[in-house]
Amino acid sequence: MIRVGVVGYGTIGKRVADAIAAQDDMKIVGVLKTKPDYGAMLALRRGFPVYTLPERVDEFRKAGVEPAGTIEDLIKASDVIVDASPEDVGRENKEKYYQKYGKPVIFQGGEEADVAEVSFNALANYEEARGRRYVRVVSCNTTGIIRALTALRLNGIGVRKARVFIVRRGADPKEFKRGPINDVVPNPVTVPSHHGPDVKTVLRDVDIVTVAVAVPVTIMHMHMAYFELDSPHSRDAVIEAIARTPRVYIAEAGRGLQSLAQIIELARDLGRARGDFPEIAVFGDSITVSGSELYMMYGVHQESIVVPENVDAVRAVLGALPKWASIEKTDRSLGLLAEGKRYGQLAPRP
Amino acid sequence: MIRVGVVGYGTIGKRVADAIAAQDDMKIVGVLKTKPDYGAMLALRRGFPVYTLPERVDEFRKAGVEPAGTIEDLIKASDVIVDASPEDVGRENKEKYYQKYGKPVIFQGGEEADVAEVSFNALANYEEARGRRYVRVVSCNTTGIIRALTALRLNGIGVRKARVFIVRRGADPKEFKRGPINDVVPNPVTVPSHHGPDVKTVLRDVDIVTVAVAVPVTIMHMHMAYFELDSPHSRDAVIEAIARTPRVYIAEAGRGLQSLAQIIELARDLGRARGDFPEIAVFGDSITVSGSELYMMYGVHQESIVVPENVDAVRAVLGALPKWASIEKTDRSLGLLAEGKRYGQLAPRP
Repeated sequence: MIRVGVVGYGTIGKRVADAIAAQDDMKIVGVLKTKPDYGAMLALRRGFPVYTLPERVDEFRKAGVEPAGTIEDLIKASDVIVDASPEDVGRENKEKYYQKYGKPVIFQGGEEADVAEVSFNALANYEEARGRRYVRVVSCNTTGIIRALTALRLNGIGVRKARVFIVRRGADPKEFKRGPINDVVPNPVTVPSHHGPDVKTVLRDVDIVTVAVAVPVTIMHMHMAYFELDSPHSRDAVIEAIARTPRVYIAEAGRGLQSLAQIIELARDLGRARGDFPEIAVFGDSITVSGSELYMMYGVHQESIVVPENVDAVRAVLGALPKWASIEKTDRSLGLLAEGKRYGQLAPRP
Repeated sequence: MIRVGVVGYGTIGKRVADAIAAQDDMKIVGVLKTKPDYGAMLALRRGFPVYTLPERVDEFRKAGVEPAGTIEDLIKASDVIVDASPEDVGRENKEKYYQKYGKPVIFQGGEEADVAEVSFNALANYEEARGRRYVRVVSCNTTGIIRALTALRLNGIGVRKARVFIVRRGADPKEFKRGPINDVVPNPVTVPSHHGPDVKTVLRDVDIVTVAVAVPVTIMHMHMAYFELDSPHSRDAVIEAIARTPRVYIAEAGRGLQSLAQIIELARDLGRARGDFPEIAVFGDSITVSGSELYMMYGVHQESIVVPENVDAVRAVLGALPKWASIEKTDRSLGLLAEGKRYGQLAPRP
């Protein structure tokens, strides 16, 4: 039983904690909260011991939440830490706490790449995490791009150039102070956006440029991708490659799935926790091949796409399971859409 | 075991079907779909036999969905029908199909009030549905207002005048063609909106005027309510009345709940199916009493607020359980927030 501590219980942390609790080879030893708000109450209700920072213990007690201990107690009780703190706080935690202990730590993509020895995506480079002390799961958009590229490459379709145009959600659903509310914002206004370089922290050899804007949407990101393939391939071959890849779902307009909100509606109707959609959702009707050029649009659910990646990162860093065994175990435990997927039967990565 | 057929499997119908399937005294005999889209697949996956209109049978077969029968087969197999068809289609179904059979039918608030013998809200007039053939569960905003008024009245706080200002969500999450996207639309531009008169179909004696606008939001409606009470009451008495009433939840800013999106975040974190929040969510900090004047804001989740009302309407029409027993049973089965609620111990309605 791998004992996991989750530091930070916000958008990502609470989901990772639930996903880890759903594994039969892992156990949540506790979660770190910095405020005694409704999230702390829900963690307790969920059966997760709540730890806090030493300077917050009194505040928690006043709010009627008795902490199980401090962050250092949590680290000591854990085999692995998943740090899902806000941007840059993970690095602070590393310097202040993690470096004192020998425990492996999984960081999130909000941190700079050099916080860790290796940036991680389960489909692309699971094995590289083994035995590392600091691993970083790349962020949501980067994960989406890597999955799309890897779906092709693992199935023998090489990509010479990737140009991805990203329409970012402006804020997460609960972030009521954040905009924009009636604007399209170059985000950043320079080219490339950080996503292209970030993809290269995992897929070092890919020629990629990304451009991004933010829009008044909280549900998902949308990517409009243009890939130059290594040689002409049929549309059927591309669809087959995408369809057989885990964590990638093909949505069809003919079945009533032709917008991001409808993808989320599907997730809600499937009974998914929090209406999450950790797969990338490729709009099948958008897959267009012209010679060596491939176009497609896909949705990336910013709140949940990295959740299965974190679960796999825990196993990868400890060498607890081989790549495909971990991916399949994670996907089954989370109920990801897996019809026609071929776990472990994909061709080797080119 | 009450056998229930659900006609219409859209936003309301699919939720009512799930809620009915969660009752230990009811059973879904089937649902009616008019299109063989992903909703039909999900109904089958959920274990609900799928019926369709006679003229759609071929289309369903072509799409690989074998219908269990036609709408008339569904009516014959059911003790009660819940009709959750789009606006005005319920009336068409009544004329075309329901009038041939002696079965009771529960309509939704999208239909005009005269489609039924009685308009229904469980807290307010459960007993009036008993033995009726046609009952109409009032719509989401109307249900919200009736719950707010009834919370006060059941606890001895009379309301002389109700003036409610409604900020309506523009569309449901999946309705990607519907606006507005950057506007505030008087909806309707005349005063009163239909909600005030609709409240009177249940609470006949109340002096109420409603005014409504639509905004670019898909998550919930917001009501800004101004009530003139029959006499001065303390803020504590009002809070106590609201807190003890089933299907009404008090959200506190101090706990991180100060916007509608945060209410939905709470629902997601609670593991609610589809992230639903069938309670009305009163912003506790907004409850303000000045002499006989009461102000408060509350959220109404348009997709789910009527779901428990439909479940109770099924029992009410058959006389299957007394009012408070049904309300409590429904709320427990759906996991509604019930701490401090006093089922069946409320004072009689004034």
